[in-house]
Order: sequence, then structure tokens, then C-alpha cells
Amino acid sequence: MKREVLSNSHSDKLFEQVYDYLLDRIIREEWKAHEKLPSVRTLASELNVHRLTVFKAFQLLKQNRHVYVKDKSGYYVQPNSLLPVESMNDPIVSAYVHKSHLSEIHQVQATYQFSKALIEPNLLPNHYFSEYVKKVFDLYPKVLGTYSTTQGDQELREALCSYYISRYHFHLSPDELMITSGSQEAIDLVARVLVKPRDVVLIERPTYSPAIDVFRRQGAKMIPIEISPHGYDLEQVELLMQKEKPRLFYLNPTFHNPTGYTVSAEQRKRLVELAAKYQCLIVEDDPCRDIYFRDEPPLPFFSYDTAGYVIYLRSFSKYIAPGLSIATVACRPSIMKYLIQAKSLSDSGAPLLNQKIFLHYFFSERMQQHLAKLRIALAIRREIMEEELSVTDWEWSSPPGGFNLWVKLPDSVPMDSLLGKCIEQSITFVPGAICDPQRELSSWIRISYSYLNEQQLRDGVRRLVRMVRQLNNPYLEI
Amino acid sequence: MKREVLSNSHSDKLFEQVYDYLLDRIIREEWKAHEKLPSVRTLASELNVHRLTVFKAFQLLKQNRHVYVKDKSGYYVQPNSLLPVESMNDPIVSAYVHKSHLSEIHQVQATYQFSKALIEPNLLPNHYFSEYVKKVFDLYPKVLGTYSTTQGDQELREALCSYYISRYHFHLSPDELMITSGSQEAIDLVARVLVKPRDVVLIERPTYSPAIDVFRRQGAKMIPIEISPHGYDLEQVELLMQKEKPRLFYLNPTFHNPTGYTVSAEQRKRLVELAAKYQCLIVEDDPCRDIYFRDEPPLPFFSYDTAGYVIYLRSFSKYIAPGLSIATVACRPSIMKYLIQAKSLSDSGAPLLNQKIFLHYFFSERMQQHLAKLRIALAIRREIMEEELSVTDWEWSSPPGGFNLWVKLPDSVPMDSLLGKCIEQSITFVPGAICDPQRELSSWIRISYSYLNEQQLRDGVRRLVRMVRQLNNPYLEI
Repeated sequence: MKREVLSNSHSDKLFEQVYDYLLDRIIREEWKAHEKLPSVRTLASELNVHRLTVFKAFQLLKQNRHVYVKDKSGYYVQPNSLLPVESMNDPIVSAYVHKSHLSEIHQVQATYQFSKALIEPNLLPNHYFSEYVKKVFDLYPKVLGTYSTTQGDQELREALCSYYISRYHFHLSPDELMITSGSQEAIDLVARVLVKPRDVVLIERPTYSPAIDVFRRQGAKMIPIEISPHGYDLEQVELLMQKEKPRLFYLNPTFHNPTGYTVSAEQRKRLVELAAKYQCLIVEDDPCRDIYFRDEPPLPFFSYDTAGYVIYLRSFSKYIAPGLSIATVACRPSIMKYLIQAKSLSDSGAPLLNQKIFLHYFFSERMQQHLAKLRIALAIRREIMEEELSVTDWEWSSPPGGFNLWVKLPDSVPMDSLLGKCIEQSITFVPGAICDPQRELSSWIRISYSYLNEQQLRDGVRRLVRMVRQLNNPYLEI
Repeated sequence: MKREVLSNSHSDKLFEQVYDYLLDRIIREEWKAHEKLPSVRTLASELNVHRLTVFKAFQLLKQNRHVYVKDKSGYYVQPNSLLPVESMNDPIVSAYVHKSHLSEIHQVQATYQFSKALIEPNLLPNHYFSEYVKKVFDLYPKVLGTYSTTQGDQELREALCSYYISRYHFHLSPDELMITSGSQEAIDLVARVLVKPRDVVLIERPTYSPAIDVFRRQGAKMIPIEISPHGYDLEQVELLMQKEKPRLFYLNPTFHNPTGYTVSAEQRKRLVELAAKYQCLIVEDDPCRDIYFRDEPPLPFFSYDTAGYVIYLRSFSKYIAPGLSIATVACRPSIMKYLIQAKSLSDSGAPLLNQKIFLHYFFSERMQQHLAKLRIALAIRREIMEEELSVTDWEWSSPPGGFNLWVKLPDSVPMDSLLGKCIEQSITFVPGAICDPQRELSSWIRISYSYLNEQQLRDGVRRLVRMVRQLNNPYLEI
């Protein structure tokens, strides 16, 4: 039947019909994920059309991410193609979407949420917040009647700008600062502005899982850079910058998520030099710099940047006020102008109310006192978690800050069934694989000690340990 | 020199070199915007490579929006190509961005802002807001310590769901409702989920300008549908749905922006039938339904939809509380699941604080009283504007609701110099061209009566009228 359509039609639309024809067969799973499609030559003769026509159809399939290309060897079916079979009967047969793996885990309701790298709400000075909010309404009676600018409230940008300058010696003006609704929006905007399909992106392995999802959605070619307690292998990084001409290197080098590692000042300086030398932007994600347990971490990459190659993402959601979702992007005007254009299409600026509340709360003395208490509370919870884990032979390195333990379980543990069983037992954690751009690291897990109180921590970890042991030795009693 | 590179290299990367070579020449503006590139054949022989190689390079240029194709006649340079010349020295040589034309006008600071379709902050019950905010903190002491879910606060979704059901007879469950940060995010998400490059999108002419920018960014092929005081030409719409198989029809049919027209109930019913018949989604943007001056408008398209082809976007920013930026998307689960996935990559849900404040404010009796007053205040301002315009020979049809007058100036008025001169005189308006997907309608302007007080309105309109007269007759005294 398809054949008929093909032969009846005039050549201009022919390749689109070939496209539809091939797409139908992919949707019907005549070719499964990662399966190779017939060659251009074969299909051309099979459909009795010119090879160029088939080639054009393949180009379009590739452009729409239904197939991918292995060098020279041909076209293969994209695994999570954008056309789930069930959606064939939906009105939208071409939804253009990528998943956020982490947010799917967060949707699981559980008693022992080791998956959430968030502060337990009880650790926040909730009563104190409301006083500040009242103050804000006295100061800005019309705050709810007013839009923010796309770039963010001028007063807040000026305050944060001087804060960054005094704390971290940034070279920065308020025009080089943007307020976003949380760091997720910041990463999304940066990726949308900077990354085109086929662009090379360097990314830590492991890394913050939603960043992988965002860069994958942009069609980036991701090259993993291993991060260890000693940071990166800079010789390898330089070689890659030389050879692959990456558009950017996304990293979160301070109490790294998920490992907790922190990159040294020396490596920071050196990497900023390399970035300028090879014109590779550095996107520095810095969401938990203030959560250190002993020493303050080294200055941000941005502090060492003179050539304008570092983009600094700073979220204040995690430990100041998740309910406000305030984050900032610091970068040079040449990039900022594009970020503002992109943001103006996706929203009209972070809500002004949230920006004003944050402004007055963040710079209050009480807030700084709260932060000091918070560090102690989290340090204690980390110790409790490590204490409970000390009975195991699992491997981890004790983090000097942040929210997470990055733990290696015995290789023998079947991760999928572990996650399944844990969810049954109302325990959630982040499987290492989703923090890995290569989707490996399957015997690692990220467990956060920030979201549960001390008793829940002890109970939850004990349950987790029992679960793992039992999976390793089914005859063991629980 | 390029030649050398080409000849030395192995064929696999050859087309990428041709791509770079052509891109360089485009950046150097050897070919200007809308200029035709040499044919595949010509370039192939000029560069001494196979035609397929040049073709692949062209495909990539097209995919990256540096060139566009006119049926059969060849490749042309994309006007606002994504590589502005000045950015060649920027770190980002491939920023992938489209402008928001409206937000650029909003950035102009002016005394007489006829460009802003927003409520003058003084018309909002600002004092009353703050009481509600305090109430919210008593009710939800931990509201600032908590993230919302990606889809939005359950309590708010349930409340708005029953509101929609009782007011508009929607068939709706809370799971079919999403809370977004304003309608701009709603439009952006819907476009990103539904529209792929080359998808056909029907769009009103004129229409809400940022929607044009968003669909253009998605690479949609936009087909304008004229809207008149009598609505649409449904025969033409049906033909287009039949012939072009559009993915969706974006419309704002109630006190339409910018014209103020409202589509009849009959047309709404009929269009919903057509949508289902031709599997064309209807994206109904409904930001000022409550701002009617005499009769309530007809029910939303969504009320008539049984087949699940209508997506209902409802913003509450404009007249309830711009500072909260709360909007909702109502659609069927088959689409909602994709919207949630997309949103989880761009933020972690609208801030919970804003959702809770909105919940308690919107459903308060006082709010409904305020709305009644607001309608009267805006009706008066519309009358003032029309009174001041009555001395001219300009054409407009008096809007039964909304914020704007859509006015046709004499064809002889030079629009560009008018806008320039007005900005000098601290007057802003929206030129019709940016509301037109075809960038014509150059003698029309959108002037809003909602953002200025009565005295400013009179002064501003008089100045505008003088300006136009003087541009038409330079010898006239101002």
C-alpha cells in the first residue's frame, strides 16, 4: 500500500513519504532499539526510488532522533526514540521529550528517602521566614502587582554581585548576573543557548544526573571525565580539548554531587587556563559551597577566570529556601545577552516576591547564624550514616561537605532487584548508573543524609544494609 | 587554503569541512540574508567533491538553521542566522537563540507605556495581599522549606480543577492540570513537547507576539489564520487541516490579543469537531477571560472537547497577581505525561510559596469583589482612550473585554519613524508587525489602556495623536 503512495507521488515530497514509511516500521518495532536499518542502497531498490531520496529520509530520521549513526557502518534505531508505541493513538505522535531520571525516583513516596539531597524542612528556620516575609510586604507593598525583569530584580542582583565580589573576589557587575528559578532552569538555559546537536560536551563521571538528561536532550556528544578524590586527569582533559574541540565542560567541583569530592585550587587555576587556551567554556555548578564541615572549599573557578570562559551557576534552593527556588548565573555579557533572550521565551523572570524575600532573608545576620547551625547538624547526620555503615564492607570516602555519601556496594549485589526491593520497603536511593553518562557504575549508589532525622537515618540505613545482605545471601534471615 | 584541507582529508569528515567552509562564507556575509547559495552541483565542482557531500553539508546547515529551503528552488541564507558576526570573537560561536520581540519593547522605560497589557499596580488590592500571605505562613509554616512537585501543588490543582468544572463544565481531574510559572512557560513547554522542526502550526493573524517567537524557535512552519470580528474562515481552516496536516492550532479566542475579538460559541464547537476529525491539537490561550465589560464570554474550547484535542492554557498573572506568576495547563494524560517530563528538565515546579498564596487569595470572597471593581475600572479606561481617539480618522473596533485597542493608522504613517519618535517622547506601543507571523500589518498598532492611570491615558494618547499627525504633515506645529 505504502508502495502505491510512493509511486503515485511527485518526487518533491517523495523523501518525506520514505521518512513516514521508515518511521512506521520503527514504531511497529520491525527494527528494535540499536538494530541496524537496511542500507540506503537496499531500501532504494526495495522502494524503487533514488538513493538520494532514501538518504534524505535517513537525514530527517536522524535529525528527529529516531535513528543514530555509527561511523561509516550505517543507521541504527535510537533506543528511547521519541515515539513510544503506545502514543501512536495519542493526539501527539511526535512528542519531542527526554526524561529526567532523577525526578522519576523523587516521585516515589517513601519513609526513608535517601534519594533526596535536600534539607529536612525542620532544619530550616521556618518561623523566622514568615517575619521576613511580612517585612518584605511593608517594604514593597506592590510586590505582588509587579513583574520582575527577565534578568532578575536589580536590587537583588546588585546585592549578590557585591556579595560575590567580597566573598570570592569575582570580577563582576550586576549586568553579568541573572536570577533563575533554581539551578535546573540555569542548566537548561545554558544548555539551550550553547549546545547544538553534535556539539561535544565534557561532563564529569559520575555527575549530577539531570544535567546528563539536559545535554542529551540537546543532542550533545558527551565525553565523560572521571572525577576522583584527586580531581581530574588534566592531561587527558587537555588532549580532549585539543582533539574534540568541546563546546563546554560541565562540572560541579565543590562537594561534588554525587561523590562529595572537591577539586583543588591548583587544578582549578590550571583548568581555567586550559579553557581559555582551547576556547572551551566551563560551566561551574556550585549548589552546596556553604555546606562545609571543617574548612571552606577553594574559591570557585570563576574567581580565577580573566578571559570570560567560566559560567558560574549558584543555587540557593537546597539549603536556604527550596520554596523560593532562587539561583543565579554569572557570566560575561557576550553570553548573558543570549541567556536573557532565551529566558524571555521561557518565562518572564523569576517571581519578584521570591526575589525580594530572598534578598532580605539571605543577607540577614540570623541567616548566617542558621547556616552555622546547619553545618553542624549535617555533619552529625553524616557521622550517624557512616557509623551505621561501618559494619559493612562497602566502600566510600567521607565527604568534607555536602549532602551525600557515594557508596560502592559489593559487585555481587543485583542493583535492579535491590532498588525494587527497597522501594517495597519504603526506602529510596539514587542508583549510580543514572549519575553516569555511560549508564554504568552499576554497583554504586548515592545516599543522602540531609533529608531524614537522626532516628530515621539509623533505621533506614540498617534496613538498607539488611536488604543488601539478604540479596547477597538469600538464606539469611531478615 | 580551504581547498587544501578539503583535498587532504578522508571522505568521512569531508562533508563537515564543506559545512565549515560554507558557514565561514555565510558568517563573512559573502552571502547575505535571504540570498541564494550556489547550487549543490556548482559547489561540488568548485570544491571538487561529490554532490552528495555538498548535499550533506547543506542538510546540516539547514538543521542548524543557517539556511532555509524554498521548494525546489534551492538553499537561502537564514536572516537572523544563529551566528551574529560580532559573536565570532565571543566564546560562544554557536549560540542557539531566538529573540522575544515583545520583551525588547518592554525593556524600554517610558512614561506612557501603551505597550504593557498589564494592570496598573495601584488597581491591585496590595494591602489585602499581605494579610493573605501571613495567613499562608500560619497555615503552612514549612512552605519555604519545601519543593513543589513538578506538576504543581496537589491542593491547588484540586481547587482549580473543581473551579474549572463548576464554572466551565470541564471534564477534568487534578492529574490533568499542571501549574506553570506564568503562561509564557506554558506556551514554551507545549511547543517544546509538541512541535518539531518542519511541523506545521496554524496561528492567528495577528496573534500574541511571543507565541510567534516560540514556534519559530521550534522550527515550525507557521500558517497564518486571519481573525476578524466574526472569528475565522472555518472553510479555509478545514482545507488547511486536510492539506497541511498541522500539528496544532494556537489561538487566544477570548478578548483576543491584540484585537480584542471573541470567537463565537458556534465556531468554538465546530472548530473542536474539526480538530478531532483532522487530529490537529488546539492550544487555547485564555489569559483575560475574567476581564469582560458586559457579558461573560462563551465557554472555552476545552468545554466542548470530548476527544482530547484541546490544550487549555490559563494565566492568572495578568490581573490577579503578576508577582506570583501562576498559570495552568489543562490537557489529557497522554499529553500531560510529556509536559511533566519536559518541565522536570527546565525547573522543579513553580515555587510552592506562590502556589499557596495564590490558592488562598484567588478563592477568597474579597478577590471576587476586587475583580468586579477591576472590570469597571478597565471599562472606564477603555472609554477614556476611545474618547481621546475619537478626534482621529483611525480605525478600531471597541473591545468587549481585555486590555488592548487594536488600531489602524493611516497607511501614510511611517511606522518605524513613529516608534522611534514616540520612544524619544517616552511613549511606547506595540507595532502590529510583531503580532503578525508574516511581519506585515505595518499600519496597525496595539495600545493598552490597562497600565496607565486616567490622567496619563489622556496625556499619552494626545501626545501619540499629535505625533502621528506631525509625521503625516511635517509642517504641522506641535
